[in-house]
Amino acid sequence: MFKMHGIYAPIPTPFDEKGDIAWGKLETNMEFFNTTSLTGIVAMGSNGEFVTMSHDEKKDFITKVCELAKGKKHVTTGCGCESTRETIALCEHSAKAGAAAALVLNPNYYKASMKDDVLRGFYQDVADASPIPIIIYNMPGNTGVNLSANLTASLAGHPNIIGIKETSGNIVQIAEVIHRTPDDFCVFSGSSSFLFATLALGGTGGTLALANIMPEECVRIQTLVDEKKYDEAAALQRKVIAINTAVTQGFGIAGLKAAMDMIGLYGGPPRKPMLPISEENKAKLKEIFDEARS
Amino acid sequence: MFKMHGIYAPIPTPFDEKGDIAWGKLETNMEFFNTTSLTGIVAMGSNGEFVTMSHDEKKDFITKVCELAKGKKHVTTGCGCESTRETIALCEHSAKAGAAAALVLNPNYYKASMKDDVLRGFYQDVADASPIPIIIYNMPGNTGVNLSANLTASLAGHPNIIGIKETSGNIVQIAEVIHRTPDDFCVFSGSSSFLFATLALGGTGGTLALANIMPEECVRIQTLVDEKKYDEAAALQRKVIAINTAVTQGFGIAGLKAAMDMIGLYGGPPRKPMLPISEENKAKLKEIFDEARS
Amino acid sequence: MFKMHGIYAPIPTPFDEKGDIAWGKLETNMEFFNTTSLTGIVAMGSNGEFVTMSHDEKKDFITKVCELAKGKKHVTTGCGCESTRETIALCEHSAKAGAAAALVLNPNYYKASMKDDVLRGFYQDVADASPIPIIIYNMPGNTGVNLSANLTASLAGHPNIIGIKETSGNIVQIAEVIHRTPDDFCVFSGSSSFLFATLALGGTGGTLALANIMPEECVRIQTLVDEKKYDEAAALQRKVIAINTAVTQGFGIAGLKAAMDMIGLYGGPPRKPMLPISEENKAKLKEIFDEARS
Amino acid sequence: MFKMHGIYAPIPTPFDEKGDIAWGKLETNMEFFNTTSLTGIVAMGSNGEFVTMSHDEKKDFITKVCELAKGKKHVTTGCGCESTRETIALCEHSAKAGAAAALVLNPNYYKASMKDDVLRGFYQDVADASPIPIIIYNMPGNTGVNLSANLTASLAGHPNIIGIKETSGNIVQIAEVIHRTPDDFCVFSGSSSFLFATLALGGTGGTLALANIMPEECVRIQTLVDEKKYDEAAALQRKVIAINTAVTQGFGIAGLKAAMDMIGLYGGPPRKPMLPISEENKAKLKEIFDEARS
Repeated sequence: MFKMHGIYAPIPTPFDEKGDIAWGKLETNMEFFNTTSLTGIVAMGSNGEFVTMSHDEKKDFITKVCELAKGKKHVTTGCGCESTRETIALCEHSAKAGAAAALVLNPNYYKASMKDDVLRGFYQDVADASPIPIIIYNMPGNTGVNLSANLTASLAGHPNIIGIKETSGNIVQIAEVIHRTPDDFCVFSGSSSFLFATLALGGTGGTLALANIMPEECVRIQTLVDEKKYDEAAALQRKVIAINTAVTQGFGIAGLKAAMDMIGLYGGPPRKPMLPISEENKAKLKEIFDEARS
Repeated sequence: MFKMHGIYAPIPTPFDEKGDIAWGKLETNMEFFNTTSLTGIVAMGSNGEFVTMSHDEKKDFITKVCELAKGKKHVTTGCGCESTRETIALCEHSAKAGAAAALVLNPNYYKASMKDDVLRGFYQDVADASPIPIIIYNMPGNTGVNLSANLTASLAGHPNIIGIKETSGNIVQIAEVIHRTPDDFCVFSGSSSFLFATLALGGTGGTLALANIMPEECVRIQTLVDEKKYDEAAALQRKVIAINTAVTQGFGIAGLKAAMDMIGLYGGPPRKPMLPISEENKAKLKEIFDEARS
Repeated sequence: MFKMHGIYAPIPTPFDEKGDIAWGKLETNMEFFNTTSLTGIVAMGSNGEFVTMSHDEKKDFITKVCELAKGKKHVTTGCGCESTRETIALCEHSAKAGAAAALVLNPNYYKASMKDDVLRGFYQDVADASPIPIIIYNMPGNTGVNLSANLTASLAGHPNIIGIKETSGNIVQIAEVIHRTPDDFCVFSGSSSFLFATLALGGTGGTLALANIMPEECVRIQTLVDEKKYDEAAALQRKVIAINTAVTQGFGIAGLKAAMDMIGLYGGPPRKPMLPISEENKAKLKEIFDEARS
Repeated sequence: MFKMHGIYAPIPTPFDEKGDIAWGKLETNMEFFNTTSLTGIVAMGSNGEFVTMSHDEKKDFITKVCELAKGKKHVTTGCGCESTRETIALCEHSAKAGAAAALVLNPNYYKASMKDDVLRGFYQDVADASPIPIIIYNMPGNTGVNLSANLTASLAGHPNIIGIKETSGNIVQIAEVIHRTPDDFCVFSGSSSFLFATLALGGTGGTLALANIMPEECVRIQTLVDEKKYDEAAALQRKVIAINTAVTQGFGIAGLKAAMDMIGLYGGPPRKPMLPISEENKAKLKEIFDEARS
């Protein structure tokens, strides 16, 4: 069965000025990603603005990314929706399109109802029905709901649930998940800012916004850990936080897209209501970015 | 232009055991609502499980509710989506269906990006494009984003933005909104638990989960305030909190649906992943509910 | 037994430039408060910077305020400390000094340990030992701990616990407390911003920072409610929020002290580490304040 | 100048059944700590229930611990109070008593006023006045205030501020602090649950509740990191989290004290209002603890 290891780029969805998907730009971007040292691509992750896309757009996008990555990069696909039925439909479509695994965000609008029994039922139903393996996606910053180590440990026994993308940044919880799940359960860092700590504790990779614009630096952190060069890895990690904080946290997806424009990829505007970053912030971003790559 | 005043029931969407919309049950429920003292109906509010429904299901549901309420109750329709374009599409559909106004929840997944300029742009774009008036919907408990009095005040000047449904429960913010918006801007309580305080401060009505199961009690609070019988209104308000806390907060939408089943309406199961309440909780609920109506 | 009703000013502790208590200034301020329509004074409330004062300073301050208010205003004294023993010691001292009741903040540093059994034990021990009645003080904004309606209701039966000062601003919780406690249990608003809503729901008064600088306006809200002039009360309430937000929330205790300086009372500097507000903010504050009183 | 490196035990203050300090028990406990591999002792840390102790008790306790540790263990002393003046007084007393450094928690009751300028002024004033070096103490779980990497970096240049105890658990913030402060600035983990990650990123030690009851295991994590045996260190870290979560987080200080009783040290009761753990929880704790040490 597919195991998730290495660095994945959760790619933004390219939109044109009208807000439609810019398919040609996706091809150009994917050509670049295919030449990098990245292990894989995530289509329809948080950076993919998936919540702004219709069901049909999501399906088309997944199909296209799988096609463009074929034989070169693994593809995992963001399939989490508020309803179990729509989530399963996207898993099924992803399987047909050739995706390696489905990254499944928990439902989260009804926060007070997202107790462990509901969340457990959700993941079990999806995992039972999905033709491809499931990776749990914990993203409390956006969802307002945290998936506890307890819940994750109880789901890790399901044969079709192979790992978790942990974006909480709660390093104790991440360590607990690693401790309490089987050895072949994959624990991924959801941010380049705590990639090193996750790997040092036994994690197997990362799905990192920063991997879209600095893929080799991200891969290098994991290579250094694999080679037991921890001091070098820690030093690179500490340096990477500044750029990651500025590009992907400070300015959000619009900032990531602006940075992609700066390095010759296509970023373009986010879909409305999100706004492109201002010219003033673009200048700030360029300064930070140039410094980080010097 | 339409003004929003009175008590509205944000009706649940009836689903059958398979999770499909139970159209026949909707008709039965609407027949009941049409006989009550309620001023209106909200289709596709939070209690309508709108986030679990596909775009086409939402459109069909809006059409049907408008048809069933015609001439008897005003209908407002939950149109807020993560993208501006889908939100506008639902406003346009609601207008064609005959809805009086669109209740527009703010986008919220990218919480850190939902700054005032983004939210203001969103509401302005939607209000510019919508053929029917817009009511802002502030629901921080579910969205994790609060719309400040400042933001609301700045939007209240738009000719197509006629009011706000305030579900924050922050009574100071509600008072500020009333103070800083024109006299004809409608401020609605989003819960029966702070309906009296909102009305006493100058609000014009409420959209209340409890109005689905105790419509006359909810209407009576407003009638008492209108008649300046404040002590009676306050006493009824204090009594209503207990039942509202138990039914709609403690057990969520599944609890509301169970309570509807108890009084001869159709509640039915929530859509998965949400789960019906347990038999044990049903018994508890019945006890609370019976006591509240005695 | 003493019942708490009316408007109380939680007076700041006057410090000189060195940070020592300015006893002479306290006398001048108290002369003013004694001439107002206020019912009482709180010594050692949050606005009194009590956490920065030594045990002996607190005792001296309580003694002095009781002496200066004698026969003119009721005095309640902030006695809450992290330990039960020190809290009781301050209650005993307050009784000797002639205070009418002790306002008891819950311990809060060990937030995770402040479960209901610990908090209940604390209030029971203090109430058992205190020679004067106890008023519970809920102030989650500063303590990070909320005292639930459930807890308050369970404590309201103690013969020496006569009321609560509710500064949570959670109007539903306030209504629940009123509903679930005996008729003679006093529920006080802890802020002028939700005084009207608290009174309309059955509260009996308020302990209001704003009462230090606009005592008559605060008293007038309650008078209007007592006279059943709700519309006027609501209008005054909505107006008062702006000034209260600016003076006491926006700029904190330093802002309140600056405003006192502006009206001829002694505000003076807060005790370090807190800092006086900047000249620029003083100008802003003056503008807001002048507008509010015009 | 003193540099902070290694593992410190933040010792509980032993109280007798009446809540008075049990001086004899302190001696017994200190005899044990003096025989361990620990580098030092923290007197009056959060685990020392310092907020429940009077100023004089704090001074006596500091004096006694310094005396008992003399020549065997470094002593740092918790000196943070709500006022700058009392904080400085405790630093001065600690210096006289022979403490190596003062651990200074930020004031925190007036959360909204604890902006960076106030906090910076506080630490600068204390550092200027203190005869011994200062260690910043960030403990947002108890204080509700986080000291940002930005603030810490700006304070790290002060010649008398030598390090920080970071109990936030925010591993990205910890990495940023390490990155943005001079090489000789000491960054300490405030919990055994993220000790390994802190050390791997360049931290220099830890002040760990668990070090009171499992000192050698805690020291071993650091030894393994120093010896570049990262896999072993990570494995031990993952194992330690379970026991730490149970003993020191799940049951708080009362749990830590109960565990001390189990291993032949004196734990005793916490000071009121905190309560000893129940017999039932003691049994649970024993089970967890026995398993951890097996």
